[in-house]
Amino acid sequence: MFELLKVDSQSKARLGKLHTGHGVIDTPVFMPVGTQASVKALDPRELLEMGTQILLGNTYHLNIRPGMQIMEQAGGLHKFMNWQLPILTDSGGFQVFSLAKIRKIKPHGVEFRSHLDGSPLFLGPKEAMQIQRTLGSDIAMVFDDCPPHGCTPREAAAAVERTIRWARECREQERVPGQKVFGIVQGGCDPTLRQKCAEELVRMKFDGYAIGGVSVGEPEHEMFKAVEMAEPFLPSELPRYAMGLGTPAQLVELVARGVDMFDCVLPTRVARNGTAFTKKGTISIKAGFAKADFTPIEEDCDCFCCQRFTKAYLRHLLNVNEILGLRMLSVHNSHLYLRVMKDIRTHIEAGTFSEYRTEFIRTYVPSQKVLKARVMHSLKVEDCG
Amino acid sequence: MFELLKVDSQSKARLGKLHTGHGVIDTPVFMPVGTQASVKALDPRELLEMGTQILLGNTYHLNIRPGMQIMEQAGGLHKFMNWQLPILTDSGGFQVFSLAKIRKIKPHGVEFRSHLDGSPLFLGPKEAMQIQRTLGSDIAMVFDDCPPHGCTPREAAAAVERTIRWARECREQERVPGQKVFGIVQGGCDPTLRQKCAEELVRMKFDGYAIGGVSVGEPEHEMFKAVEMAEPFLPSELPRYAMGLGTPAQLVELVARGVDMFDCVLPTRVARNGTAFTKKGTISIKAGFAKADFTPIEEDCDCFCCQRFTKAYLRHLLNVNEILGLRMLSVHNSHLYLRVMKDIRTHIEAGTFSEYRTEFIRTYVPSQKVLKARVMHSLKVEDCG
Repeated sequence: MFELLKVDSQSKARLGKLHTGHGVIDTPVFMPVGTQASVKALDPRELLEMGTQILLGNTYHLNIRPGMQIMEQAGGLHKFMNWQLPILTDSGGFQVFSLAKIRKIKPHGVEFRSHLDGSPLFLGPKEAMQIQRTLGSDIAMVFDDCPPHGCTPREAAAAVERTIRWARECREQERVPGQKVFGIVQGGCDPTLRQKCAEELVRMKFDGYAIGGVSVGEPEHEMFKAVEMAEPFLPSELPRYAMGLGTPAQLVELVARGVDMFDCVLPTRVARNGTAFTKKGTISIKAGFAKADFTPIEEDCDCFCCQRFTKAYLRHLLNVNEILGLRMLSVHNSHLYLRVMKDIRTHIEAGTFSEYRTEFIRTYVPSQKVLKARVMHSLKVEDCG
Repeated sequence: MFELLKVDSQSKARLGKLHTGHGVIDTPVFMPVGTQASVKALDPRELLEMGTQILLGNTYHLNIRPGMQIMEQAGGLHKFMNWQLPILTDSGGFQVFSLAKIRKIKPHGVEFRSHLDGSPLFLGPKEAMQIQRTLGSDIAMVFDDCPPHGCTPREAAAAVERTIRWARECREQERVPGQKVFGIVQGGCDPTLRQKCAEELVRMKFDGYAIGGVSVGEPEHEMFKAVEMAEPFLPSELPRYAMGLGTPAQLVELVARGVDMFDCVLPTRVARNGTAFTKKGTISIKAGFAKADFTPIEEDCDCFCCQRFTKAYLRHLLNVNEILGLRMLSVHNSHLYLRVMKDIRTHIEAGTFSEYRTEFIRTYVPSQKVLKARVMHSLKVEDCG
């Protein structure tokens, strides 16, 4: 199911192939986020053209709208949204703990009220797996307890206990044929908790392992540490997925720490604010400098946007609120993420990943604004990944 | 410049070819509206795929943003927005009279305040033609006085006087090589005024003639009458353009009355409200009936949207405010307008236009809501064509 083709000699970077019922995925891979059965502002053709191999969908959101009755009638998420390649579905754990304001944790899940209309809902291991069966995703995630950054050690320990228990319940649920299920390692910044959670989950034999609780408001160095704490306890022959991360530079660093899979709302979210990602950092296309700049966002970029439009035109579109502006920035940003992952794979294969990593980090200037845009507690409901 | 290939034997419908510096246009033609250098929600590839032959741009809007300094540096509107086919630019007359709230009509134009920031602006024949030179449009429109429906006969007469005088001033301005200039016939619902305006303009020898003041809040039958009043006085060997119209059924009826060119914001505007045009009228994709309707908007439609997506999926996208929803409805609606025009041309050529017209009008159920959406005085600024 997962072929580990090569491990970098100077880092933990891995080259692999992940086989699913809807095709083979080259790893390391970036997965564009289609929370509500659509990657914001993009269409399937644009996604295929930029080299998308797998999309994300979300249990929490899709269960509320359109609901599982419609999804069943549609014949699953692939057919509903007309996407033929693999889909990974998040379990809704993250959303229940971040979006739903009024909640009550029970032994077999969480009672909460819909962020939309306040109606009472219940999501637990059984329900999350049932929904993911209906969605028919290629990779389903277990239902976990994802506490916020800064919770007490007692809360962190309880969340890990619950995550392990719920993972076992998920493991016992039925699946659709070919569906893989990934465990999620929690444990915050506590190495003992991370190790314990990882070891318990590995004992349950999942098809892959995610590192959760790493995009919940913690500073970058803690996020790297959390990944470093969990990684040694994950089986090398299975894929590892760091959830909800990150900037392009963070992705390069996480690949070097042995991570194979990523998803992040940043490329499309910041696009809607007029921010473009480049290999050297982010630039605000709305800023004055772009006013009469008749060159593309990146000269060497072969995305649909850079092949057609200048910064001056894009700035105008953003200024006058034309949808094409945020569409094209979403195209460019998502394309950049996929291109960085492709470059990473090429360099791991060629044995030059360390040089690539050094050069990338040297030239990439991180933006505090963008780093903050990823923080959980600033999320608007409609933006959630 | 304009080849009149055929006139229908049972109506005034005409088949023609309009030659411009950026290519030949088959008429009757529908021109998608790109007011601010972008057809709302659509990209150039989508426009080309649906058979767009010519786009509209707007003097009033583009002069405010991005402004003529940027446009000059860009090398004109074609290059600025990366559109290689013909562009027709409206003169800004309609917008000055509909958008700019505080205005003072002067002998050589209109003093007004920007709808955006209230800054003082002046637009007259000289300025409008200067801006259209900078835009480098293939077809420029004269700067006219477009009074609202329901103005007094005195106001209507004054507007016609002014329109004629300003048309003469426009006629005397310089053009970019190959640029054609169309006169605009005003006169409201007064046959004497319409005739007078038409005759005076024809004497000035423009490259084509538009019928203006027909999308200013008047009921449908008055709109048809206004076109019928002006048409007999327009030279048959030149193209005729009915400005700002209309529904698909109105387009069929206006072709039958001898009109060759159309533009309208309806297809993209109603798309953003979740309304889809079909050959039988409009349907609200947000309505309950579409909830579990897993067929495309129109079974026999070959647009990008109908080839990929079901009504159930589109309804979901619209319900959860995903941009792809309004994008795809904009694609379908614009495609439908262009397809109707193509069908019209095919039927004129085959000599079966009258049968087509009868059948189209018989099966097309007009929607009052959509008819009202076109009314000038309900326009929101950001929506203006």
